[in-house]
Amino acid sequence: MKEFELIKHFFTEQNVKRKDVLLGIGDDCAVVLPTEQQNIVVTTDTLVSGVHFPENTAPRAIGHKAVAVNLSDIAAMGAKPSWLSLAITLPEIDNDWLTEFSAGVFHLCEFYNVQLIGGDTTQGPLSITITAQGLTPEGKYLSRSGAKTGDWLYVTGDIGDAALALKHLQGEVTVDNSFVETINAKLNYPKPRVLVGQALREYASAAIDISDGLIADLGHLCQASNVGANIVLDAVPLSTAMHDSLLFNDAINLALTGGDDYELLFTVSEDNKVGMETALSHVGTIVTCIGQINASNTISTTLNNKPVPIYNTGFEHFSSTV
Amino acid sequence: MKEFELIKHFFTEQNVKRKDVLLGIGDDCAVVLPTEQQNIVVTTDTLVSGVHFPENTAPRAIGHKAVAVNLSDIAAMGAKPSWLSLAITLPEIDNDWLTEFSAGVFHLCEFYNVQLIGGDTTQGPLSITITAQGLTPEGKYLSRSGAKTGDWLYVTGDIGDAALALKHLQGEVTVDNSFVETINAKLNYPKPRVLVGQALREYASAAIDISDGLIADLGHLCQASNVGANIVLDAVPLSTAMHDSLLFNDAINLALTGGDDYELLFTVSEDNKVGMETALSHVGTIVTCIGQINASNTISTTLNNKPVPIYNTGFEHFSSTV
Repeated sequence: MKEFELIKHFFTEQNVKRKDVLLGIGDDCAVVLPTEQQNIVVTTDTLVSGVHFPENTAPRAIGHKAVAVNLSDIAAMGAKPSWLSLAITLPEIDNDWLTEFSAGVFHLCEFYNVQLIGGDTTQGPLSITITAQGLTPEGKYLSRSGAKTGDWLYVTGDIGDAALALKHLQGEVTVDNSFVETINAKLNYPKPRVLVGQALREYASAAIDISDGLIADLGHLCQASNVGANIVLDAVPLSTAMHDSLLFNDAINLALTGGDDYELLFTVSEDNKVGMETALSHVGTIVTCIGQINASNTISTTLNNKPVPIYNTGFEHFSSTV
Repeated sequence: MKEFELIKHFFTEQNVKRKDVLLGIGDDCAVVLPTEQQNIVVTTDTLVSGVHFPENTAPRAIGHKAVAVNLSDIAAMGAKPSWLSLAITLPEIDNDWLTEFSAGVFHLCEFYNVQLIGGDTTQGPLSITITAQGLTPEGKYLSRSGAKTGDWLYVTGDIGDAALALKHLQGEVTVDNSFVETINAKLNYPKPRVLVGQALREYASAAIDISDGLIADLGHLCQASNVGANIVLDAVPLSTAMHDSLLFNDAINLALTGGDDYELLFTVSEDNKVGMETALSHVGTIVTCIGQINASNTISTTLNNKPVPIYNTGFEHFSSTV
């Protein structure tokens, strides 16, 4: 295992050096000290080769995505990411692979001033587990459980492009060449909505990131908040690639169930609507109102102001579709 | 993946409910609030089936060990463990396996008042990654880097039993039946030295847990402290099982290089020796002085007061032997 010990050094060269990290990589533990009285948010996500990304995915994309999916959870809490622990299991040591993978990890870390504070490197089938932490002022965090009847339902960005890219890679959908690069970037290099999350902290009543699919994650939010919701299908934001590649029904179905978007789904009271839209205009992310929270304890969908049956996913079971 | 989503519920029933956990399992992140101005220590360790434990290891032992190896790192920092994140990758859902595994996890958590605050469950080859956190008063933590020339070198417990158990399982060593249960327990149910670590916080100049092997981990400590050390081989504490199963040379070699002991190796200045021994007598753990730190920048060994060549491990390369 000597070589596996040595490649730890691969991850010790980083440009981010935070003041609240008293001891970084290289001891039995890292030591951190939040500089004020703050809440700490903690999340863990694993990516397994062949399950969470195709086996031939570029190592830089794997590194990026492993960080991004964790930062997306931190964004959904309205927190500012701070520290990462990286556990990587590799079948063999491949310097080129590691160079690209760590570049993917560190690029996002540097962008968000997140420091890698430790981890573990082991031999085995390729898998990456990251634990990410973030900071938020005491008591100021978003959760899934604050949505109230009458709140408006919003999403960031466009929905479904990552699922479209996966279907295209699997040969199930034809996508015009002019869109391929863009949608592949959505799948392989998702952008966690870190700044949006922090901007929403003062305005949103509930938030979740869309990893399992819009309906499934709305289900998680409704269950935690003990409410229901109606989605106005005409309003769900779809990219030109989605409109161009699929019939509307197929496009909306993919958007509702596809997953891997890493956009934020959040709720805002009528009173906070204008304030939220103003605050978000400074962040430069487009948000779209796609429906409203109600007291029904179910999820319904409407099209052209008429109720339509919910698509092929089981909200009743609060199931994950990915 | 519906079932994999559902087994998350397996890990939500726990008896530990800490006041500093504001939001536990079930949202995008957990939220914690350290109750005073404290340092937080963070560690991550992965166990891969067939690499870190034999594939036929009892699931309760795997759960125990996955927690124990992380708490051992927290112990080496002198901190009190507080929160765990558990990422588990499973080839299939086996309720009996999960019942036993989670019992192993929660038994140690309850003993040390550690709360599981989140994690991820994915499908793939069996592997467990835990990120454990702990708390220690501000600025009061142990590290590998404080050892000084003249400090005394100590270990807790006996060294080498876990390695002996592994060799016995692999059919390389014959062990009398009367010892098998005891040494297997050392391998499968290691006891992290959590209370010892906290007791040492006021006395030790440096500490590390012995996971890679006594020589390798002493190498890490010496490298971090920029010192050398001499080990008095006659003093290295060996169990009756080790003495009974192996010739002295083989026993001492296994103790030096075997790994998986999860005992603490620490250094204490002459001035703190009596205070440390008094403090540790309250914890009820036997500690043994096995040598002394020097300025040589190498590790030497003596037997019967005579220098003997160092055993078959490369301290010069600061390599890991497990």
